[in-house]
Amino acid sequence: MKPVKVGLLGLGTVGTGVVRIVEGHQPDLLSQSGSPIEIVKVLVKDSSKSRGIHVAADKITENPWDVIENPEIDVVVEVMGGIELSKQLILAALDRGKHVVTANKDLMALHGPEILAKAAEKGCDVLYEASVAGGIPILRTLVEGFSSDRITKIMGIVNGTTNYILTKMSQEGAAYDDVLKEAQQLGYAESDPTSDVEGFDAARKMTILATLGFRANVELSDVSVKGISKVSKEDIAYGKRLGYEVKLLGIAERQDEHISISVQPTMVKHSHPLASVNGVFNAVYVYGEAVGETMFYGPGAGEMPTATSVVADLVAVVRNLNLGINGRRGFVPYKEKKLKTDEQIASKNFILLHVEDKAGVLAQITQVFAQHEVSLESVLQHPNATNPLAEIIIITHDANKAAMNNVLKQIESMNVVQAIKSVYRVEG
Amino acid sequence: MKPVKVGLLGLGTVGTGVVRIVEGHQPDLLSQSGSPIEIVKVLVKDSSKSRGIHVAADKITENPWDVIENPEIDVVVEVMGGIELSKQLILAALDRGKHVVTANKDLMALHGPEILAKAAEKGCDVLYEASVAGGIPILRTLVEGFSSDRITKIMGIVNGTTNYILTKMSQEGAAYDDVLKEAQQLGYAESDPTSDVEGFDAARKMTILATLGFRANVELSDVSVKGISKVSKEDIAYGKRLGYEVKLLGIAERQDEHISISVQPTMVKHSHPLASVNGVFNAVYVYGEAVGETMFYGPGAGEMPTATSVVADLVAVVRNLNLGINGRRGFVPYKEKKLKTDEQIASKNFILLHVEDKAGVLAQITQVFAQHEVSLESVLQHPNATNPLAEIIIITHDANKAAMNNVLKQIESMNVVQAIKSVYRVEG
Repeated sequence: MKPVKVGLLGLGTVGTGVVRIVEGHQPDLLSQSGSPIEIVKVLVKDSSKSRGIHVAADKITENPWDVIENPEIDVVVEVMGGIELSKQLILAALDRGKHVVTANKDLMALHGPEILAKAAEKGCDVLYEASVAGGIPILRTLVEGFSSDRITKIMGIVNGTTNYILTKMSQEGAAYDDVLKEAQQLGYAESDPTSDVEGFDAARKMTILATLGFRANVELSDVSVKGISKVSKEDIAYGKRLGYEVKLLGIAERQDEHISISVQPTMVKHSHPLASVNGVFNAVYVYGEAVGETMFYGPGAGEMPTATSVVADLVAVVRNLNLGINGRRGFVPYKEKKLKTDEQIASKNFILLHVEDKAGVLAQITQVFAQHEVSLESVLQHPNATNPLAEIIIITHDANKAAMNNVLKQIESMNVVQAIKSVYRVEG
Repeated sequence: MKPVKVGLLGLGTVGTGVVRIVEGHQPDLLSQSGSPIEIVKVLVKDSSKSRGIHVAADKITENPWDVIENPEIDVVVEVMGGIELSKQLILAALDRGKHVVTANKDLMALHGPEILAKAAEKGCDVLYEASVAGGIPILRTLVEGFSSDRITKIMGIVNGTTNYILTKMSQEGAAYDDVLKEAQQLGYAESDPTSDVEGFDAARKMTILATLGFRANVELSDVSVKGISKVSKEDIAYGKRLGYEVKLLGIAERQDEHISISVQPTMVKHSHPLASVNGVFNAVYVYGEAVGETMFYGPGAGEMPTATSVVADLVAVVRNLNLGINGRRGFVPYKEKKLKTDEQIASKNFILLHVEDKAGVLAQITQVFAQHEVSLESVLQHPNATNPLAEIIIITHDANKAAMNNVLKQIESMNVVQAIKSVYRVEG
């Protein structure tokens, strides 16, 4: 039987895992896909570097075109990351009729439509399961598993670094800066952690999830993003006391053609399945009109989990090759998309205020909410031992974002209010 | 465009949901599958019965052969349940080249290989996502999402009735009989609850999960089954105190070609993701060599969740029709299977004993464990207020089943032991 030949772009963490699985699971992959799968060329940055895995010297190259222009290669697996060069190479591979498997969320979030259009034109597969939530097969679940349903909400803990930091802060009462430093030492956070902690990484993944889940062309610029760098241990402690965990959630919502997408630290009720997703684990919660509540949980990153998803895509491409249907099962968005206005975005909110500790203040403040027709679920006031101010925590019922912005603006301007210490969306 | 024509066998809860989704989601189903989908014939038991949904009178029939022998029908959807008649009709439909979607776990657990062989022979699709864990797309996850991995463990809360009962017992400290009665009144349990509470329903689902996950022909008779009817509120209370919830778990394990499958009430550690799956929800935990820990959570039954899975399968059949590949993507088990012996099955165990409250008893008992090389994780002894006996709770480290059986036999015969009150497997 003729083996399917694979060119691998990148031999970092994920690339090494891909080699391990492809070489270690040969009989299984043959049974699963119908063909032997052989990695014939591997692009590396520095061929002199020693690695944890042996790859024959004649397969190694530092020149990407040795992979892209190699006529015997059927499938290109891109696990090198980055955007411009990856895009160029993937488009060139598709131009040559090669199928593509990629784990590159940045690329797919920014240039997915262009790449998928090229794939359709050339009759090629482009699969990218590993780009979101590592080992969790969530993309095929959205496309195949829920093909019959209308998904109205997707909430994801899709960044392991921030979930690790928030979990540590919650479990140990530690401060953000200390936990970040520890995460960096352990290799869970980059030396420049911006992309993770400011929510940009999660925003890219939510772009991909929302596109597939809502069957509409969602763009990265549609996502409003707020990171975790301002989350204090006090916020976490207050949340806990009221029955919430702070999680960095990506939230995509849809009503007819109106959608909203955001990434933000969110108070998640303890009884919600997302509240107990801890450490570097990821989870995606999907709500469908017919199916109701579902959640998919697993490792969000790491060599072998991510490689599992990459190789599952590779198996799918080879199955398609043997069926002669490559490029014919591609996902095509077909729904209109309009962004919700602030009047159309509703959620519960958690607000922590520092106010003067004197009679009538609480009444004045709750009056502002009433004026803007924001009703309250609970109000907690108590004097703060360490300063002469009182703390007020308010949890609202569902309120639209425009009304909430007006409430907050008005409260901020009140003389009795010293500070709006924090505002969180509330879920569950 | 020529619509794909569907014959529906059964218009009960799930059948009604299927009609609702197919009729309510027409534009979506067309975009998803590439063809309009039309239900042209519906088999009912009693055509005079009034229903919650309108189906044109000329589509209704009480004669199954009006569906099976109808030449214009492309796909037969079986949601009538039962075994013998369903099997006969499905085989007859396949003989006539019709594709089949079924939600029938009993049928697939007992006669899956025969039905799938007939489908392969006739070039037809047989899909059955809805047969396990209702709205959770777990079968395609095992077959497609984890095609690259070797799954070594599947643990499922796959019966909503028993999970509802155990959740209530845990949350309210209620007794089994009382909660069962309540569940029957609410319609969560059948008037004859045997199939659910004795674990037979879960065993059928585990047969299907293990077959797909381990890629081997697992049979219902391979599953050792124990139900929840002997679970006492005391067991649950003791478990809780030590950090465990009692759950009816299906557990399938594999090491090379050696597998074991069981259904039994199990003490699940609070930190394990299965421990917080409550009420009628289902969840399937999958451990793969490469991916590690994953879990899939959602509604296990109900009209719309189950119908979501049925119609997702219908969409897959129609996609295959439009690609001309029906019958060519079927799952074929290819792995050897040997059942593990009791010496090869290992787990932690929870044992509750009533013993005479006198010096030296604990030493005598722990000595028995030591003799059989079963090491202990924790031992808890305290006098029981209501009788002159002491209670001992022992949690073992991983021990093989044969050794455990020998330990229990020897302990039972000891004069100082009044009773072995309960024995549970421990997970997490």
